[in-house]
Amino acid sequence: MCYICRVGLIEAVPNVSEGRRPEVIEALASALADSPGIDLLNAASDAAHNRTVFTLVGEGAALRTAILALYATAVERIDLRSHAGEHPRIGAVDVVPLVPLDPLDMPVCISVATELGAAIAEGFSIPVFLYEEAAQVPDRRRLETIRRGGFEGLRDKMRAEIWRPDFGPSTPHPSTGASAIGARRMLIAYNVNLETGDLDIARRIARAVRASNGGLAAVKAIGVRTAQPDVVQVSINLVDYERTSLHRVFESVQREADQLGVGIRGSEIVGLVPAAALLPAATRQLRLADFTMDQILECRLLR
Amino acid sequence: MCYICRVGLIEAVPNVSEGRRPEVIEALASALADSPGIDLLNAASDAAHNRTVFTLVGEGAALRTAILALYATAVERIDLRSHAGEHPRIGAVDVVPLVPLDPLDMPVCISVATELGAAIAEGFSIPVFLYEEAAQVPDRRRLETIRRGGFEGLRDKMRAEIWRPDFGPSTPHPSTGASAIGARRMLIAYNVNLETGDLDIARRIARAVRASNGGLAAVKAIGVRTAQPDVVQVSINLVDYERTSLHRVFESVQREADQLGVGIRGSEIVGLVPAAALLPAATRQLRLADFTMDQILECRLLR
Repeated sequence: MCYICRVGLIEAVPNVSEGRRPEVIEALASALADSPGIDLLNAASDAAHNRTVFTLVGEGAALRTAILALYATAVERIDLRSHAGEHPRIGAVDVVPLVPLDPLDMPVCISVATELGAAIAEGFSIPVFLYEEAAQVPDRRRLETIRRGGFEGLRDKMRAEIWRPDFGPSTPHPSTGASAIGARRMLIAYNVNLETGDLDIARRIARAVRASNGGLAAVKAIGVRTAQPDVVQVSINLVDYERTSLHRVFESVQREADQLGVGIRGSEIVGLVPAAALLPAATRQLRLADFTMDQILECRLLR
Repeated sequence: MCYICRVGLIEAVPNVSEGRRPEVIEALASALADSPGIDLLNAASDAAHNRTVFTLVGEGAALRTAILALYATAVERIDLRSHAGEHPRIGAVDVVPLVPLDPLDMPVCISVATELGAAIAEGFSIPVFLYEEAAQVPDRRRLETIRRGGFEGLRDKMRAEIWRPDFGPSTPHPSTGASAIGARRMLIAYNVNLETGDLDIARRIARAVRASNGGLAAVKAIGVRTAQPDVVQVSINLVDYERTSLHRVFESVQREADQLGVGIRGSEIVGLVPAAALLPAATRQLRLADFTMDQILECRLLR
């Protein structure tokens, strides 16, 4: 695995429907971590969602081996018939996005996703839907469309010819459902916390800043409650940080909050973020002129 | 050379007294770049200073070979007896600081500097002074002390017993002078440009923010003119960005400029900077809470 030249290096972010039983989460993490040629960078479990998101990096072949090992454990330890959680899901291994570290490697990611989907269907008799950049059917580009109805509605949904999977059987696996395997750009999970407990304010701001309502191009946003009753959150997925920068998102939320007379408690990045996504905020804060990524030592070493 | 695990990885920043003749600069750069096991990351020439600063990264043994190749070319192509330039210097290869990428590797850097100094003296009959963390004499910790008097005053200076070099002959090399070889923490060259042509203002602000006059702990600063007559500059060396952050430096300069009724044109980083030094400015701009370097993808990959 070459960390000097990032060409061919892929991040995989399997989302598994288990966020409560520590011994099962541990077994899933070990299945990945013990697989050769990959680095397991992160595992984030959410008990309310009953879901764990793993982040690993490697080349295509090594990732495929690791993810097949994850499936072997998930099939054995997770039964969606007795699974409850707030997050929508269709499978025990619900979704596996593959993300190129070098944006130019998207075609490589698409073929790794396609091969991985075939191998999962073959090895575990699980129906596989290819999504986003890997989609072979235009309607399956959006993950939300594939996931609509959840595990509970999957058997009925798959009766329709248009929901015949890209690989595997035409009915869900009885205990582990189906999986969405895809390729996508790097996504940043970014939340801005507001100094109010009024969920409606967070929702209004989310609507104002998100692309679907005419806001910032690369922004998906919803308003959600937090664990603190006096703090609500604008929960954002930034799907293309080169198109819309993080600080532009923050400043837009701040402007809308100002309009509504609400303060900002702070913001948070969930999980990993490439240095390139944070840089514009730093250069803005320092009023840096003529600064380029080439000046960042770590980025030079990763070439 | 291991870019995954930075242990043992060292940055060398040789400063060579040639910034005007392109063919000589080219030959010097080739001597480094053609040496195995190192990465030449940067070469910045300044014609007014008549000086070029190279940045290369590698393990100790490979750096030593590369820098000895640089000396071979410099000895052949540079004659300080006919060299003029604004920057103080005592040698054709004036100074070679070695910087650990992992701060814990300072002891490794010190021994690489010491071995390199001995090899330079041995191979080229050039007197070598060890400085900063590599200094074996307390008075030689500060590079300024070693360099005071320049090449022109070196022969006289070295007549004193206290200026007997750490390695090599007790008189300067006739054409290439002497060299200072040292080990130090990573330094950030950071300049803030002011909306005025009044050099005195830049000097007053430099005095207000620098450690030597009771300002910020890790800051060295002077006021200088720029190529634009209506812009002067606070030219800063930040010698420990973990102790004093870049944004703290910027905000201090901004506060002093405000007091004097002068605007900030912008700031600039010269050369390379570790991601860790920019991060605090980004987190401040985005009001990020609970963010750690561990969340930066590139930094995880460099482990």
